[in-house]
Amino acid sequence: MKALFCDAGGIRPLEAETPAPRRGEALIKVRVAGICRTDLELAKGYMNFVGIPGHEFVGEVAALSAEDAGQAQGWIGRRVVGEINCGCGHCEFCRAGLERHCPERTVLGISGRDGALAEFLTLPLGNLHFVPDNLPDQSAVFVEPLAAALEIFEQVRIGPDSRVLVIGDGKLGLLICRVLQIHGCDLLCIGKHDNKMALLQNWGIKAVPPQDYWPDRRDYVIEASGSPSGFGLAVQALKPRGTLILKSTYHGAMNLDTAPLVIQEITIVGSRCGPFAPALNLLTQKLIPTDDLITAVYPARDLLNAFEYASRSEAIKVLIQFV
Amino acid sequence: MKALFCDAGGIRPLEAETPAPRRGEALIKVRVAGICRTDLELAKGYMNFVGIPGHEFVGEVAALSAEDAGQAQGWIGRRVVGEINCGCGHCEFCRAGLERHCPERTVLGISGRDGALAEFLTLPLGNLHFVPDNLPDQSAVFVEPLAAALEIFEQVRIGPDSRVLVIGDGKLGLLICRVLQIHGCDLLCIGKHDNKMALLQNWGIKAVPPQDYWPDRRDYVIEASGSPSGFGLAVQALKPRGTLILKSTYHGAMNLDTAPLVIQEITIVGSRCGPFAPALNLLTQKLIPTDDLITAVYPARDLLNAFEYASRSEAIKVLIQFV
Repeated sequence: MKALFCDAGGIRPLEAETPAPRRGEALIKVRVAGICRTDLELAKGYMNFVGIPGHEFVGEVAALSAEDAGQAQGWIGRRVVGEINCGCGHCEFCRAGLERHCPERTVLGISGRDGALAEFLTLPLGNLHFVPDNLPDQSAVFVEPLAAALEIFEQVRIGPDSRVLVIGDGKLGLLICRVLQIHGCDLLCIGKHDNKMALLQNWGIKAVPPQDYWPDRRDYVIEASGSPSGFGLAVQALKPRGTLILKSTYHGAMNLDTAPLVIQEITIVGSRCGPFAPALNLLTQKLIPTDDLITAVYPARDLLNAFEYASRSEAIKVLIQFV
Repeated sequence: MKALFCDAGGIRPLEAETPAPRRGEALIKVRVAGICRTDLELAKGYMNFVGIPGHEFVGEVAALSAEDAGQAQGWIGRRVVGEINCGCGHCEFCRAGLERHCPERTVLGISGRDGALAEFLTLPLGNLHFVPDNLPDQSAVFVEPLAAALEIFEQVRIGPDSRVLVIGDGKLGLLICRVLQIHGCDLLCIGKHDNKMALLQNWGIKAVPPQDYWPDRRDYVIEASGSPSGFGLAVQALKPRGTLILKSTYHGAMNLDTAPLVIQEITIVGSRCGPFAPALNLLTQKLIPTDDLITAVYPARDLLNAFEYASRSEAIKVLIQFV
């Protein structure tokens, strides 16, 4: 099968073997996959990942393992999206429904498990969610990053009267803005890219470049720029006892003055993967439109070009159409 | 009056003028003062403080301003402790009872206001708490650091079934351990000083040196060591979604890898000054004994020697007895 492959040497196309589903797993034929900033970071060495990257996809179930043949009828041909963390199933986190924090987990296209930038992938049946018929592939593929945006509400109580700043107008920053917008709070985004800022303006969301922002004591700041300067700006932008939500992982260490965190009693909340079910709901009800987030759709034969284009600063979401 | 004075040149004794209380303020004759790690940091340049350091004291009201002479009878001669943050009185924080986060605040012996390492100081009447007659000076002087320990419970919900690690066996770390101990939670302290570790053992609190600790997924870690290595250890010691409470300010920036914070969805809570009333309650009811925390008591004429001794690693609380 066609795939992209990532190791210490970077990223390259590969003709890979189609994986075989293990007991409890489905073989999934990828229909559409998306490229995320984490994929670009993996290609630069983040997580020392070796394998097929990609964790945003919509696909259809192509096969189950021989052991699960009895339940095949309910699965084969169904259109699905899939949670990317695969837990051990019996530790305290898995038992609490928090497979995404299982210390033994594999993560689709990120850690210990080949991912979605390929024609086929495998995932446990328990990770899959059926996609409603009226939700098109090119919208369903946003469920994973939208879930990551919704994770913020799993962790902190942002009130409708909260004053919120989002730093970063990248793919995730834009989705976070969309989610916050329907929440009703006072929202401002700091961005650096003309086309993305224009998009925010189109949506009716206030957006300014960093040089035009003057710290105005926000209750919440969401750092989604992935840049150390974004972190410093976030701390300055918060009111005392405010909360900084860290959505970006930086590759490497950064220099941080912790004194303001203590003096201002700032809370920092690291935030990663989120719940799929509400993300599917929002997409299906068209409460989070996604069409204008798609900058380009590449065919499967252009996987590497798609990846290279996704790293350009003007790109928002780059999709790969496999079928 | 005898005082210590701190500026860019370090710390030195000074014969200073007795301050005059302004309207709404009391002149307080210091009876006993304590030396805190923050005072040692100020002497090294932290906060660029210029003035008389010191913010732990018990004293008695010596005078009010001429404008407040009418209410003098209720105040003069009363034994008091005093909250150290002096707010503007009308911003959103002051109105919410959070003077300690007023952006215009002065802070006794730390920022914009002379402190307690002197025979006299001034504070607003609203900052003062009367000291019950049965609470001796040498115990009442612990109210400020004990309030800082209690601040943790103002900010996070540590349950009686939580597993908590305290990093640091300094003055504040020991008080935090005492407060957590009466809370009933599973408690471990990591320390480096034989005499302080022995004290913890005497109290029935488990304590180990860093090299004997193996990360065991704590719900809460309280960083009170003031060392960057303590921060790194804290992140390792936490379970996913655990909470790190930062009680130490480091002078200068530190190098920090933020990826684990996001991946493990760690929460970091900066924590500073706390509520005086419950601290006074605990001290008055003898629920937090303090006698064995006092390493030395110096007379006022030995202010500089007291300060120098307080910087030694074996010192716990060093007090100065003014009267």
